Amino acid sequence: MHTNKLVVVGAGHVGSYVLADAMKIGLFAKIGVIDILDNVAYGEAVDQAQATAMTYMNNIDVTSGGYEQCSDADVIIVAAGPSVIPDKKDINAQPDRASLTKINCEVIREVMTGITKYTKDAIIILITNPLDTMVYIAENEFNYPKGRIFGTGTMLDSARLRKVIADMYNIDPKSVIGYMMGEHGKTAFPVLSNLNISGIKFEDLTEYFEVKDSISNPEDIQKEIISAAYKVMNGKGWTNAGVAQAAVTMAKAVLLDERSVYPASTTLRGQYNHDGDVALSMPCIIGREGIIKQIPVKLNEWETKKLEESIDYIKLAMKDAKTGLEYLK
Amino acid sequence: MHTNKLVVVGAGHVGSYVLADAMKIGLFAKIGVIDILDNVAYGEAVDQAQATAMTYMNNIDVTSGGYEQCSDADVIIVAAGPSVIPDKKDINAQPDRASLTKINCEVIREVMTGITKYTKDAIIILITNPLDTMVYIAENEFNYPKGRIFGTGTMLDSARLRKVIADMYNIDPKSVIGYMMGEHGKTAFPVLSNLNISGIKFEDLTEYFEVKDSISNPEDIQKEIISAAYKVMNGKGWTNAGVAQAAVTMAKAVLLDERSVYPASTTLRGQYNHDGDVALSMPCIIGREGIIKQIPVKLNEWETKKLEESIDYIKLAMKDAKTGLEYLK
Amino acid sequence: MHTNKLVVVGAGHVGSYVLADAMKIGLFAKIGVIDILDNVAYGEAVDQAQATAMTYMNNIDVTSGGYEQCSDADVIIVAAGPSVIPDKKDINAQPDRASLTKINCEVIREVMTGITKYTKDAIIILITNPLDTMVYIAENEFNYPKGRIFGTGTMLDSARLRKVIADMYNIDPKSVIGYMMGEHGKTAFPVLSNLNISGIKFEDLTEYFEVKDSISNPEDIQKEIISAAYKVMNGKGWTNAGVAQAAVTMAKAVLLDERSVYPASTTLRGQYNHDGDVALSMPCIIGREGIIKQIPVKLNEWETKKLEESIDYIKLAMKDAKTGLEYLK
Amino acid sequence: MHTNKLVVVGAGHVGSYVLADAMKIGLFAKIGVIDILDNVAYGEAVDQAQATAMTYMNNIDVTSGGYEQCSDADVIIVAAGPSVIPDKKDINAQPDRASLTKINCEVIREVMTGITKYTKDAIIILITNPLDTMVYIAENEFNYPKGRIFGTGTMLDSARLRKVIADMYNIDPKSVIGYMMGEHGKTAFPVLSNLNISGIKFEDLTEYFEVKDSISNPEDIQKEIISAAYKVMNGKGWTNAGVAQAAVTMAKAVLLDERSVYPASTTLRGQYNHDGDVALSMPCIIGREGIIKQIPVKLNEWETKKLEESIDYIKLAMKDAKTGLEYLK
Repeated sequence: MHTNKLVVVGAGHVGSYVLADAMKIGLFAKIGVIDILDNVAYGEAVDQAQATAMTYMNNIDVTSGGYEQCSDADVIIVAAGPSVIPDKKDINAQPDRASLTKINCEVIREVMTGITKYTKDAIIILITNPLDTMVYIAENEFNYPKGRIFGTGTMLDSARLRKVIADMYNIDPKSVIGYMMGEHGKTAFPVLSNLNISGIKFEDLTEYFEVKDSISNPEDIQKEIISAAYKVMNGKGWTNAGVAQAAVTMAKAVLLDERSVYPASTTLRGQYNHDGDVALSMPCIIGREGIIKQIPVKLNEWETKKLEESIDYIKLAMKDAKTGLEYLK
Repeated sequence: MHTNKLVVVGAGHVGSYVLADAMKIGLFAKIGVIDILDNVAYGEAVDQAQATAMTYMNNIDVTSGGYEQCSDADVIIVAAGPSVIPDKKDINAQPDRASLTKINCEVIREVMTGITKYTKDAIIILITNPLDTMVYIAENEFNYPKGRIFGTGTMLDSARLRKVIADMYNIDPKSVIGYMMGEHGKTAFPVLSNLNISGIKFEDLTEYFEVKDSISNPEDIQKEIISAAYKVMNGKGWTNAGVAQAAVTMAKAVLLDERSVYPASTTLRGQYNHDGDVALSMPCIIGREGIIKQIPVKLNEWETKKLEESIDYIKLAMKDAKTGLEYLK
Repeated sequence: MHTNKLVVVGAGHVGSYVLADAMKIGLFAKIGVIDILDNVAYGEAVDQAQATAMTYMNNIDVTSGGYEQCSDADVIIVAAGPSVIPDKKDINAQPDRASLTKINCEVIREVMTGITKYTKDAIIILITNPLDTMVYIAENEFNYPKGRIFGTGTMLDSARLRKVIADMYNIDPKSVIGYMMGEHGKTAFPVLSNLNISGIKFEDLTEYFEVKDSISNPEDIQKEIISAAYKVMNGKGWTNAGVAQAAVTMAKAVLLDERSVYPASTTLRGQYNHDGDVALSMPCIIGREGIIKQIPVKLNEWETKKLEESIDYIKLAMKDAKTGLEYLK
Repeated sequence: MHTNKLVVVGAGHVGSYVLADAMKIGLFAKIGVIDILDNVAYGEAVDQAQATAMTYMNNIDVTSGGYEQCSDADVIIVAAGPSVIPDKKDINAQPDRASLTKINCEVIREVMTGITKYTKDAIIILITNPLDTMVYIAENEFNYPKGRIFGTGTMLDSARLRKVIADMYNIDPKSVIGYMMGEHGKTAFPVLSNLNISGIKFEDLTEYFEVKDSISNPEDIQKEIISAAYKVMNGKGWTNAGVAQAAVTMAKAVLLDERSVYPASTTLRGQYNHDGDVALSMPCIIGREGIIKQIPVKLNEWETKKLEESIDYIKLAMKDAKTGLEYLK
């Protein structure tokens, strides 16, 4: 008889938070943990398993081991591989996710090889950076069913956007509707033409809400968001809380077949005149089959330019990873 | 030392669901129940108190009694008074909330008299129908601090709108941004000019989403929503699940000071050229002080017409209740 | 691909609360509602479905219809049939669940006939009274796989016991370990020989805790619990909050395969010298396969006598229902 | 107007998990983060604040800064100071918490000095090791109101005990009633004389439950639990998930005034013939005022011996910390 199962691949800063969040949402009966360091996976699994003895916790079967744990998984969240090395000396430094490409593309290939030995049914949600290149590799090199692999993409960048806007107007960020598109990283851009609060357009917000520290220029907002991200990373040394929440929210949309619209990274198939050459984030409908549909929203001139810049940037990383049409040329 | 306290006034179909929902959200240490029938309040309180002995339940102190329970309340939710009598023979019948006016305006006056003997600090959330007239009475006849009284208003009507639109496009209703304004009831109208999915305007949705049973005319959507409401009521005899969730969601916004934007009913103070003569719903920022700000969004021609019709309709009920400027003339 | 599904049969006072609770626990992607009155099932389903458009709600697919909804159900909770008619005049009156036997044994046979046309895989949790006789019929007349049918049994009676004891000592009822056994109803008895707080035996509690309104005699405690139950029922007209929470807690133990120990009603197979002639409650391990194991705890003399009295009483009801060995003799 | 506030002091492995867990329980409107490294506190606060923009998250006001954040705190959880340095080479190594004493007693004195500048009202929950000595210092050197300071104590050790026993019998650890007493650490001992499942005593469990890997000797169970703890620590490098859940569960018992019985560390006042000379864990009633009552359960001979050994061991650490009567002699 079926019980919902999650497997978390990679139990570092991000994976361990994914695990911690997944323990609390009442959705999973079984959670498997995989890490290149068996001891670490074992330690994380046992730590969480011990916590199930507390009053309000569900009795979840938390295990550690190899990829065989994926055979009956419903969802697999991949946070394997090193993350960006923060600059401890300069809180404003902005080291590049792309520097990780060479290492992490091999990590992802190894992970996908491990997973596909046991399943092509599970929905795979990727977090490993540089995210879009990792998604491209996982989606296109392993003959995995279309839609069943996607990346958390600009889900986190979008949360940051909403938080930045919400703080300007001192309201709940959940009341801000908006998202970033493109690369998960430096070149993600805010789609301000679609941002709204209760349908009130971005440019009209100041008519309705008192403003603290207003920023209206899209370039400045983009900078503010990227800067906020790097401040977190340089502050605590990594970012994990937000992206873990993003991954678990998406896993929930999958398992409950919610058909929620979230920005996710997946390979373009004709959208924005790109077909199979790049993966990036746009709003997508997410349900039990993974990405049910991409929603290529109309972009204004600035956004279109930013999209192309973002694509160019992702393709540079893809070159390092030796993947995609760009590389084959 | 402070512990969060809710008081529920009226333990009928709606109040008992508010109580049930409030037991589950981890926010309240104490919940008091008041009903005109002491036995009913007692039975509800004991039933819920016994449930606290189950595995995952918080140990909430649930009591029943009189208005003295309000003295240390943070939030009071009022669902007192009879609700609309459904038509058991005809599922399409649409009996009018206004028919309740005469009875319920006395109920509300009694409730407010009871509450104000013990507190003017608690945030009061009204559910009793006809809602807008009840809000007007409670807000304007008892010298209660401004903002601390409001009604669930078109929160439920708006949920219905989002569900209707979400079903057309087979997506998560939480991914639909939209709301109804005006009266809570028959004359509530959808503000389609502000409805969007990820910023995509209502009129452009069919370009992006596959459609089941499309309705595009605002009149038809309004009818669909009202009809859905009456089908529920005539089907099960009342509506409570949705409106209870609305009230509890608002109570949470208050206690956590979320400053979320929700449509709520409160007296107009200059918005839409009305000052103190009527209460109705528009998007509001809701936080620890109650209604922090009303957001009088711009309306198109159809919506403006509908707003005035809705105001006229509410004022008819106010006449029956002998309240407001309209009555004084 | 699998999504967790619950079907609720019977959408009256109890079933509607089961539905409401099930909407909030994040476990179910689909919930089906069945009622003898199609309109009521429809109204309940639509009311809850509209609530999914609120901020914190999962997008659950709530439907109404016939037993075909059971074909892919993981768990079916049965709350069909009329409940005990309360005595509105006397809050201390104790009308008997057994009076419902004749009607409800036909209801249960109809429900089981409906369910078994579509599935023998789902775990069925019964709430309909007189509970133990209903469980006996469902378990023994339809060739349903052993363990997959059980009743909420004395889960609620046990919560009441814990609450009564917790109130004596002014502590969290979750900190009281204890349960009732036997019939769900008047003849349920507290197993005080196993009741404890942190391992401190019932008879020693007064040494450690300050006491309000101590009761130590088991007969008096039994009376107190039964009286509390009837006060709820006579007060509000029915009991539903506690028993709904019981059913949903058990459904969670099933779907998460928690192997929690809860008192549940199921047919005896050799325990206490009874084999196949009666169903009643004792602690059971509950997991994905339903009742994994009954735990026939040792009883003292008083408890043993009470068990036999309870069995005799259940068998009287079984006679009315024309079921079981007793009837065949 | 009151809103529930938590302050987390120390944002390392443990404090960051406390923060993450606290974000999810719906109890807090405001959370303040304090760390000796301002950047780290800032990074953690911003990371979590960004996560509030996700679908199901409450809009919590997460801030970082100094002790002034404590002035309106309801609960302060202290996880400051370095934790035990794991042995990366030997997974069975058992480095001693006491080695941390000298550093952490200064950390706790600094933290308490910081807190008491702003409040003596907040309930303070300590996690910093060696826990019992830290509790002793905080409780006895700062004239803080009695009961308002306590340590998570053997809450985690007890969860481990329940998990170990639950695994033997393949059941939900929440169905195991049991706890460890004494020091939080190596000398904690299981109170098997009070351990039970549904009231069935430890020594009788094998009669009722099938056993995997039975251990019955108390010394062996103690070793198994301590070993499990060190395996986690040596595996992943620290333990945080379990202890964070412990602290947050206790914070909830406080804010909801649950009066739950949990093992907590606090100074003895006459219990077990010790008065003011040592702090250690025994079951306590925890509510809005903190420790409402300690429950000095009866111990058998082995347990009594173990208690004295544990006290001796704690006092050694106290000597290093130069605190308490032992030091003054």
